[in-house]
Amino acid sequence: MRKKYILAPGPTPVLTEALGAMGSPIIHHRSPEFTPILKDVREGLKWLFQTKNEVLFFASSGTGAMEGAVTNLLSHGDKALVVEGGKFGERWTEICRAYGVEPVVIKVTWGEAVEPARIESALKDDPSIKAVFTQATETSTGVVHPIKEIAAIVSRYEDTLIIIDAISALGASEILTDKWELDVVVSGSQKALMLPPGLAFASVSEKAWRFAERANLPKYYFNFKKELKSLTETNQSAYTPAISLLMGLRESIKIMQEEGLDNIFARHDTLARATRAGVLAMGLELFAPKAPSNSLTAVKAPPGIDGGKVVKTLREKYGITIAGGQAELKGKIFRIAHLGYFDRFDIITALSALEMTLNELGFKVERGRGVKAAEEILEKM
Amino acid sequence: MRKKYILAPGPTPVLTEALGAMGSPIIHHRSPEFTPILKDVREGLKWLFQTKNEVLFFASSGTGAMEGAVTNLLSHGDKALVVEGGKFGERWTEICRAYGVEPVVIKVTWGEAVEPARIESALKDDPSIKAVFTQATETSTGVVHPIKEIAAIVSRYEDTLIIIDAISALGASEILTDKWELDVVVSGSQKALMLPPGLAFASVSEKAWRFAERANLPKYYFNFKKELKSLTETNQSAYTPAISLLMGLRESIKIMQEEGLDNIFARHDTLARATRAGVLAMGLELFAPKAPSNSLTAVKAPPGIDGGKVVKTLREKYGITIAGGQAELKGKIFRIAHLGYFDRFDIITALSALEMTLNELGFKVERGRGVKAAEEILEKM
Repeated sequence: MRKKYILAPGPTPVLTEALGAMGSPIIHHRSPEFTPILKDVREGLKWLFQTKNEVLFFASSGTGAMEGAVTNLLSHGDKALVVEGGKFGERWTEICRAYGVEPVVIKVTWGEAVEPARIESALKDDPSIKAVFTQATETSTGVVHPIKEIAAIVSRYEDTLIIIDAISALGASEILTDKWELDVVVSGSQKALMLPPGLAFASVSEKAWRFAERANLPKYYFNFKKELKSLTETNQSAYTPAISLLMGLRESIKIMQEEGLDNIFARHDTLARATRAGVLAMGLELFAPKAPSNSLTAVKAPPGIDGGKVVKTLREKYGITIAGGQAELKGKIFRIAHLGYFDRFDIITALSALEMTLNELGFKVERGRGVKAAEEILEKM
Repeated sequence: MRKKYILAPGPTPVLTEALGAMGSPIIHHRSPEFTPILKDVREGLKWLFQTKNEVLFFASSGTGAMEGAVTNLLSHGDKALVVEGGKFGERWTEICRAYGVEPVVIKVTWGEAVEPARIESALKDDPSIKAVFTQATETSTGVVHPIKEIAAIVSRYEDTLIIIDAISALGASEILTDKWELDVVVSGSQKALMLPPGLAFASVSEKAWRFAERANLPKYYFNFKKELKSLTETNQSAYTPAISLLMGLRESIKIMQEEGLDNIFARHDTLARATRAGVLAMGLELFAPKAPSNSLTAVKAPPGIDGGKVVKTLREKYGITIAGGQAELKGKIFRIAHLGYFDRFDIITALSALEMTLNELGFKVERGRGVKAAEEILEKM
């Protein structure tokens, strides 16, 4: 027996209750049996996103909903400001380019958050910018961007939208869609929602729907207006939805509602602080010390040790899956998640295994030191 | 206890072994644990599609892969011939229009198959047509189109592709992708593959890949070249895949390989014949008598009885989900599937329940008559 632990920032462990629901007999998506499921899901998503507007869902990975946010709201030749501070920031740029939207890129050093003043000055310099694209949490670096502050700036521009990739942030950190006037918030099933991948979400503000009226980029599968019409008029999605994932989602949302959003955010915050305290106590350095996300902690590989080796040893020797660095960070960092179906002992497990692994790789750590630092925080949960 | 039966042409009943696999702990899609799963799936899909080329897969419904077939292979202003003999034929037209491809529509009476001669003459009239789009099985009418014959015509045109929506046909009827020179074959998980919806597939021929080189339509999530590169170079998909569905797919393909394609097709053929014999023996009429599909049987509602009432009674009184008519066929037909995880007693169940339902709705049927006609065919399986 080799017990496995998935402690990566997506996919995250699947909620047991959701697994059960996904294993029940399949239901036809245009039958009355599916009606209450979809009603619950639609209401639940509004609660989760903190919006009164419809939250659209798609059978796709989160990238699909990101694409939809571009193609449904913008037109060929439009300019869009993109915060590029990691691999997923680059994805916004790539999508814009693929559809003939001109990206105006704000390059942010990987591991740092964007300064809202840079967005303010970019919009002042060029008021023709139609949208600002950013991540809430940049999963490739473990950074959280100051969404509330950015949104406050963008909301002053009537002809500019703020569009957030909250794929790994939603349900882990506070995202107040309506209150902060976020025009589109994109998320996915395999992060804080504790489900397998395959469902993507997009909330759409009234301001964004006005953009949708004039947007001329081509789209078909990710057609927001068609989905809205189908959901509001028939309580069905336009195309065959990921039925089993939606059945699981109802369970996830139910469990999240029982815990309550504030408690969920506090739990993620505590787990994140404990993780950071643990790795610091081991003598490691955080990759994003100034703006660390509550969803994952990016840690610099110790001097002389390849981050990939840390990941590999954890996996092969201890059955634990964390994530390595991507693109320019390959080998330089590793990433431990505390996202979704995680409690304090998942953090203890991660830190304990890391202590064993680092010692094995030649970076000497006093055994129990990281765990001790984490316990001091976790026991107060 | 109210036992439920899903006898609709998608979603179809989920294979028990696949349910088990989808319920196992989630695996990271970029970890070595996922490597053998994806290798098996990729090899298995080639076998299922009967192709030596890579079969791409997407987290989406089948419509997403249909969109990808248009956007990856055609350019703005290209002409495409579309066989429109039902709701899904119309979908090809809609996708073409959404992306600025000019559809040249062959209207086919709903319930009939297209005559290959019409395609031959359309291509002769306008050799600038870059692609022919059709369904293998048109799920809205229960018709099977003569794909082999159509492909033989199109393959004579070097500058024209044949692109097949085989979403409800693949794995139920013979589709010889390479032998018939089918350039793209699209399918989905929730039909003959006995899985929940959420996975779409597209095989792509060498000829089609040459088209992909010059195609200029925009795309991002459904980027065929990017997926091919990612699969062949890293054995990973470009974006987070529907991991649990792929784990289920491996089981489905394994069970299908044990049965063998010829046996699977023969089983579907026998179940389809038994269904038709059963409904005819009840005094009902087939909606597509000349070209009935092996995946589903469309039946005309008896005179004076709304087809929707048949569907409703079956569902509410007997726990059986079949499908009604869509669009212009609403109320006029109902559709019984024999697709995927079906054996002879599913057909007996459907016919027996239909006998009870019709009597209740005032269309008098001698009890056991439809079942008897089916038994005579099914006992020889």
